[in-house]
Amino acid sequence: MQNPTSALPPGIAPRPEPPYYAVIFTSRRNSLDAAGYGEMADWMATLAARQPGYLGMESAREADGLGITVSYWQSLDDISAWRRHAEHALARGQGRADWYDAYALRISRVERAYGWARDDGPADPEAA
Amino acid sequence: MQNPTSALPPGIAPRPEPPYYAVIFTSRRNSLDAAGYGEMADWMATLAARQPGYLGMESAREADGLGITVSYWQSLDDISAWRRHAEHALARGQGRADWYDAYALRISRVERAYGWARDDGPADPEAA
Repeated sequence: MQNPTSALPPGIAPRPEPPYYAVIFTSRRNSLDAAGYGEMADWMATLAARQPGYLGMESAREADGLGITVSYWQSLDDISAWRRHAEHALARGQGRADWYDAYALRISRVERAYGWARDDGPADPEAA
Repeated sequence: MQNPTSALPPGIAPRPEPPYYAVIFTSRRNSLDAAGYGEMADWMATLAARQPGYLGMESAREADGLGITVSYWQSLDDISAWRRHAEHALARGQGRADWYDAYALRISRVERAYGWARDDGPADPEAA
């Protein structure tokens, strides 16, 4: 299911052999100029990358405030440990107080994964 | 695990009772002014929403070209059927030919889900 010829372009996380876990965090910012958000988001990304079991992260936000961040982890225990991290818990509280109108968080188990990059040619990587 | 008091803000998909499935599609556009992409993406979203087992979709793209679209489905069979849909297969081929530099696609099983909205107050919905 893996396609080892795919290069890893900026912003797309590695694809280790499944199973592993994805935390899908979809959020709506209340005001895109709220102070401190960007710095905190950058610091949380840095801190997450230092945690045991961290496999990667992908993130995109629309100009209208809707954003999706997916972080990948080896195990549910790794996700729980990161959730309990004191700085992360404080950041989440500040997010609810100051930065978000709403969010959804879904914890999922990655069962299959495919990748494609231009150098791979036009064929469908899922058809293999 | 569900929080029924959370309103459903624009762009955040419903949270039915798990388990269900998430298709995480992370892509890098090659050129953000390529003709036809927006129309095709809109049509695919419309068509996906008409398929059996469709539960919702979330999508965000950065100005630099990195985007994440997550679609939610009742079963793996529903995902396979949508994958085989003729118009969807054509659109994916055109994506590889014209619109993307690279993408990753991960199929995952949602095991837990939480939601929060401003009206819920400051408490952590995961702590319940």
